[in-house]
Amino acid sequence: MSQDRSEYSEGDLRNTGMSLKHDREWDYELDRIVDAVSERDAETVGLQFPEGLKRRAKAVTDDLREHLPDDVTVMTSGQPCYGACDLDTYLMRRTDVFVHFGHSPMKESEKIIYVPLFSNVEVTPIMEESLAELADPDEEPAVGLVTTAQHMNKFEDMREWLEERGYEVHTRRGDDRLTHEGQVLGCNYASADVDADQILYVGGGKFHPLGLAMEHPDKHVVIADPVNNVVTIADPEKFLKQRYASVHKAMDAENWGVIFCTKIGQGRWEQAQEIIENNDDAYLVTMDEVTPDRLTNFGFDAYVNTGCPRITTDDGPQFKQPMLTPGEYEIATGQKPMEELSFDTFHGTW
Amino acid sequence: MSQDRSEYSEGDLRNTGMSLKHDREWDYELDRIVDAVSERDAETVGLQFPEGLKRRAKAVTDDLREHLPDDVTVMTSGQPCYGACDLDTYLMRRTDVFVHFGHSPMKESEKIIYVPLFSNVEVTPIMEESLAELADPDEEPAVGLVTTAQHMNKFEDMREWLEERGYEVHTRRGDDRLTHEGQVLGCNYASADVDADQILYVGGGKFHPLGLAMEHPDKHVVIADPVNNVVTIADPEKFLKQRYASVHKAMDAENWGVIFCTKIGQGRWEQAQEIIENNDDAYLVTMDEVTPDRLTNFGFDAYVNTGCPRITTDDGPQFKQPMLTPGEYEIATGQKPMEELSFDTFHGTW
Repeated sequence: MSQDRSEYSEGDLRNTGMSLKHDREWDYELDRIVDAVSERDAETVGLQFPEGLKRRAKAVTDDLREHLPDDVTVMTSGQPCYGACDLDTYLMRRTDVFVHFGHSPMKESEKIIYVPLFSNVEVTPIMEESLAELADPDEEPAVGLVTTAQHMNKFEDMREWLEERGYEVHTRRGDDRLTHEGQVLGCNYASADVDADQILYVGGGKFHPLGLAMEHPDKHVVIADPVNNVVTIADPEKFLKQRYASVHKAMDAENWGVIFCTKIGQGRWEQAQEIIENNDDAYLVTMDEVTPDRLTNFGFDAYVNTGCPRITTDDGPQFKQPMLTPGEYEIATGQKPMEELSFDTFHGTW
Repeated sequence: MSQDRSEYSEGDLRNTGMSLKHDREWDYELDRIVDAVSERDAETVGLQFPEGLKRRAKAVTDDLREHLPDDVTVMTSGQPCYGACDLDTYLMRRTDVFVHFGHSPMKESEKIIYVPLFSNVEVTPIMEESLAELADPDEEPAVGLVTTAQHMNKFEDMREWLEERGYEVHTRRGDDRLTHEGQVLGCNYASADVDADQILYVGGGKFHPLGLAMEHPDKHVVIADPVNNVVTIADPEKFLKQRYASVHKAMDAENWGVIFCTKIGQGRWEQAQEIIENNDDAYLVTMDEVTPDRLTNFGFDAYVNTGCPRITTDDGPQFKQPMLTPGEYEIATGQKPMEELSFDTFHGTW
């Protein structure tokens, strides 16, 4: 990150006049891509950016064209991309070098070059504030520490900062779905399974800490959000109310669409099949993107989504019919009591 | 179509109380699907319906479940489907029997069962009205006859009806992209390349006859629309004005997104590659569904779509930036004069 890259074009965010939120620094590893093209004698390069970075495709392509032989074709995926699951396997299979920007891999692959994207927002000021919500280290030194892929580059700094203040920092890598020690995904919080009653989550957004709090209801979850500059205590109550409302609404359903998501990392085939085997009023529907438009034409009374839990819970209110996670479906169909409502998580890799 | 199928459930539209527009009759060939499952010893059956028929998935699945062994899993594609190009190749590859409803194949495949969907609206009343727009058969007997897949079952009736009135009916199969004699697609009007100065198009919708008239500007194209019960003369003027406006707007573009559509039958790779090879300000973007949302994040000034021309021209006004067909792109970039604006067509199969 400290190399001199002044020869790079505007593809490198550091050289732009653009006022990006929190001035994200982005070393997009041009050299690594150029080397891979040369090593593999590649004729085609595929690029994939998350939605918020698709606008950089032009500049990154310009840089690559400048550094690559004329006969190499660079192309960018136009498929929606919100996470590591959204790997464009079509483009991956059809290009000699495939670069996925902004997400960490669920599993390393020789075929794919993963280029991480780190936020360079300072985390210590908000951690300082979060101390008021953590127990005094003299009384309760144990604290779990988790963050998201975007802040992973600061993880060791966070740990040291807490240790300097007398805390005993407990971290773990979670399971195979997670690349880094201390990393959480929207669908996996295994890295918070540590021997501490309090967890400090450093990161932005609302979805991750909600899942974290629901997955670990016995722990005190403190959210230090350096992006929005606020410290809060995870409280899943409002979220739970929304979910209960959806479950209640779905109890009247006479038929169910059971969504099997075809995206890498989101397919839970056994779960989907088990549902339709045990319910004659359940019908299997396969798709990649799960959107309100795509479901409307089927006209089922309710849906159970075996794919990404973020779609079900975070986007849920956009759908016209109730859409439940598999666990919520079990409650709605009377197989489990309402008290067992929990967050839907994924384990294992693709 | 005249067999007794009273044992079938509501999956067969004839047995429903649903008041479908023009009372479409639909023999969905349950026996053929059941036989294929038995012959192939299939464990999985995939179904794909066009958008307007997705609501039938439940009833068709019910029928199949009743007739198939218990261990056969039936699933339905939730991917958008507007034509034969929208084949869900993911589901096709992963099921033992795959049934595509409502479109005729571009190419026969042993793997896929194509179940056509025919409209049973009467065509002769509107053909009677269309006679006023055709030349007197004593003076000019030659007339070309074309229709869409939905009315293909009535094609021989149409021909005979015209012949009885003294016309010499000219038809042809078009090219490899078309399954039937006299069939047109939104992207292919080769079946109208007949030795007649007047063409009778029997079918609904506006897009097909527009393409037809633009592709054959020398011919008098009479539209007999039995769905909306109107006879009109194809006049591409308004359409052309819209296209000219888009081309003019795109002339100011400093950069271009070049869309390569990954759907079967829509990929024109050489064309896409030729554009980016000859224009440093053109960038290749690959996607299956081409929607305004997917393009917005890239921020290119204009787009050229090498995929489905219907998306470009019919949906064009929904897109924030001008989107052109490859031919229109050549005009906008000064490679061809404005007078050469023509309809974008596809030839050959997938």
